[in-house]
Amino acid sequence: MDELRAWSDDELRELIEREATDELESALDDLGPTGVSRLLAELDEDERQHLWALLPPEEAADHLEAIPWAQASDAFQELPPDVAAKILDEFRSDDQADFISELDDDEREAVLREMDSEDATEVRKLALYEDDVAGGLMETEFLAYDRNLTVAELVADMRGRAEELVHYDVQYTYVTENGGVLVGVLRLRDLVVTPSQRRLESIMIDAPLKTLDTTSLEDLEHLFDSVSFLAIPVVDASGRIVGVVRRHDVEQAAGERSEGDYLKSQGIVGGEELRSMPTFRRARRRLSWLTVNIGLNVLAASVIAAHQDTISAVIALAVFLPILSDMSGCTGNQAVAVSMRELALGLARPSDAFRVWRQELSVGAINGLVLGGLLCGAAYIWKGNVWLGLVVGLAMLLNTLIAVSIGGVVPLVLKKLKFDPALASGPILTTVTDMCGFFLMLTLAGAVLGRLG
Amino acid sequence: MDELRAWSDDELRELIEREATDELESALDDLGPTGVSRLLAELDEDERQHLWALLPPEEAADHLEAIPWAQASDAFQELPPDVAAKILDEFRSDDQADFISELDDDEREAVLREMDSEDATEVRKLALYEDDVAGGLMETEFLAYDRNLTVAELVADMRGRAEELVHYDVQYTYVTENGGVLVGVLRLRDLVVTPSQRRLESIMIDAPLKTLDTTSLEDLEHLFDSVSFLAIPVVDASGRIVGVVRRHDVEQAAGERSEGDYLKSQGIVGGEELRSMPTFRRARRRLSWLTVNIGLNVLAASVIAAHQDTISAVIALAVFLPILSDMSGCTGNQAVAVSMRELALGLARPSDAFRVWRQELSVGAINGLVLGGLLCGAAYIWKGNVWLGLVVGLAMLLNTLIAVSIGGVVPLVLKKLKFDPALASGPILTTVTDMCGFFLMLTLAGAVLGRLG
Repeated sequence: MDELRAWSDDELRELIEREATDELESALDDLGPTGVSRLLAELDEDERQHLWALLPPEEAADHLEAIPWAQASDAFQELPPDVAAKILDEFRSDDQADFISELDDDEREAVLREMDSEDATEVRKLALYEDDVAGGLMETEFLAYDRNLTVAELVADMRGRAEELVHYDVQYTYVTENGGVLVGVLRLRDLVVTPSQRRLESIMIDAPLKTLDTTSLEDLEHLFDSVSFLAIPVVDASGRIVGVVRRHDVEQAAGERSEGDYLKSQGIVGGEELRSMPTFRRARRRLSWLTVNIGLNVLAASVIAAHQDTISAVIALAVFLPILSDMSGCTGNQAVAVSMRELALGLARPSDAFRVWRQELSVGAINGLVLGGLLCGAAYIWKGNVWLGLVVGLAMLLNTLIAVSIGGVVPLVLKKLKFDPALASGPILTTVTDMCGFFLMLTLAGAVLGRLG
Repeated sequence: MDELRAWSDDELRELIEREATDELESALDDLGPTGVSRLLAELDEDERQHLWALLPPEEAADHLEAIPWAQASDAFQELPPDVAAKILDEFRSDDQADFISELDDDEREAVLREMDSEDATEVRKLALYEDDVAGGLMETEFLAYDRNLTVAELVADMRGRAEELVHYDVQYTYVTENGGVLVGVLRLRDLVVTPSQRRLESIMIDAPLKTLDTTSLEDLEHLFDSVSFLAIPVVDASGRIVGVVRRHDVEQAAGERSEGDYLKSQGIVGGEELRSMPTFRRARRRLSWLTVNIGLNVLAASVIAAHQDTISAVIALAVFLPILSDMSGCTGNQAVAVSMRELALGLARPSDAFRVWRQELSVGAINGLVLGGLLCGAAYIWKGNVWLGLVVGLAMLLNTLIAVSIGGVVPLVLKKLKFDPALASGPILTTVTDMCGFFLMLTLAGAVLGRLG
């Protein structure tokens, strides 16, 4: 990257101010997606709008497609309708649908009114699909030819469309009948090596693998797992080809979902957060998660409040309560993580809950004995009271069994109930294990109170 | 999937026992990768070895490439050298290196001795590369032709190799000089539309984008982010083309890394866990994480132990300590998640630590006021003592600022120090925030002890 020029924010601001489009274009190319993303975070809204309006729409579209989605979608929403329409026109079809779906109804219509009516109809159709089905993931740029054409006719057509094809990701050519019904597929490399007078129907692969536009992301993942194709044609209910879904896009969507799962499990909800976003929006989103959690924490701590007499008799218990709470969270989260992974791989289904529970109990028993033993030893060394050791050790052992059971099974149950396991497993786990753990330790202590003094 | 036959484990066991290879093959195809993976988890080691030995090596390789890596690598390690060698021969080149690297030195040599010596040399060379550099991610199946050949000669060669090319993922053809030095690239679609008497050098794209075999996964991600190619040729230090790294493989590797980050952040360390693995291995791996954590927890709780007098004067504090600990973990983990994501996107670098800290403090101040206010209110409602409310509320506010600071900055610092931020951020965060939180609440309480009674 040595040959690239480094640009300061001030230099770039100055280029925007004096509308030096050419210099700006090459500066943004030097910066690359990461640099562009950092620049956008530094500029204010007016400067960003000015920048996008200055750039040729094709350049603007390229940059918006390359930077992180959370930032690109924010930037797109800030644009005036005429600029947005020009840029939208340059996106690849699968991105068009993603960007337009981010706008509310009024804004969307304002943008679509600025577009050529044929393009607008196309975008409207794509925007109807959910993000995570074949129709929302597919591209509508594909090559399809009638089965009665010859190889020579096909090649002549491709030659004539060379300019346009630059924007296509051509690996397969689809063969249709009755003006669109998919009946075959040709690999480009087969075209290279086939005599040109042959009809497509005589060289195509019949009854090609295809998928409905309503196929879910999960099913698409399994489909691509089981075959080696780079792309699969998408058909509507009548069998007409409407697009092509690529392995690349399915894997990217799956990767985004797993990143989203990580973020949600750590309490980043309501969409990805970048620190370039407004402080109040960041604070509000994080609080929506925190306020639920503090409520659940107060609920769990009410178990301690109900046993104040026991604690005031044995103050040492106050030292072990947070340890018990934290360790149960750790053991439970391990089980949650394995369940989330096995759900994603299709190795665990909601109906496997009982098997998962058994498999967690065996690991939980071993780990509970070790952790309980360690805590028992720590308590005994500190206070020299074997009963105190037994109380905290036994509470740790029992609560480990509870934590791995909840951690292993809850994600499967949430999945079954159509809740998002990445989002809800953590708070349910910590609340229930805290309540059980506090109850166990304080009740056990209460039962042998006379020996703990 | 209605047309696929469902197979019970007992039926499959029986097929293996009576060595019904054909039926077994079609049964495994019916099962698909997920089903095969579930079956392997049910079989014992002898049955698994028997199964792999029965299948034609090509079939076995296909199944091993399709199931989750953790399981495939375990299964491969169980194989006797002769079976392993036959299957290894059928893997794609990038997978060959991954599988052979899993074996220890003796096993590896035993397998390589069973292979044809030319193939063995090739595998040895690939196994030298790390998993996460271009050399470890690339495939060695690619097409390269000398610049002086004509299109017709190239097409004739491709026709002659049609059988072999089925296993290639051909989208580009590379052009070389001096027997291997990369000088150009041709797209397959350009070959389709080019007159056949032209020389390759006259139609190739000159000075193509290429990358060194030592390029890191992170740099490859940025490279693919900044261009739209599906594959980039890999050259060695002398400029000779040695392989092709595909966008698909880079994205898959990046996805695996982000899944690994999620698992590690939840305490699944030492490699991915599947519940089909032996109980003791699962318990041992999880314990390696848990025992570190219980040690850190005991350390943090020692702060409480040092303030037992304060707690025995105001037992209510024992109720608020676990809440404070848990909520600080929540607020800190949100900051960790955003930093991890910004690190992955290249939006935050270790040198941005100060900016990140400022941006976390502003969000932390808002959220600390809200959470502190809620906890203050809860304490006041419960005990009717405004000073108790102020103590727990102020401790919550201050510790939120500490938690977001540590959560935001620690991943950047760990990255700088070449530690794995996914693994270490959580334990550092919870230990430090627990110690600070306990100290704050108990010291503040100690300062106004007379008014809390």
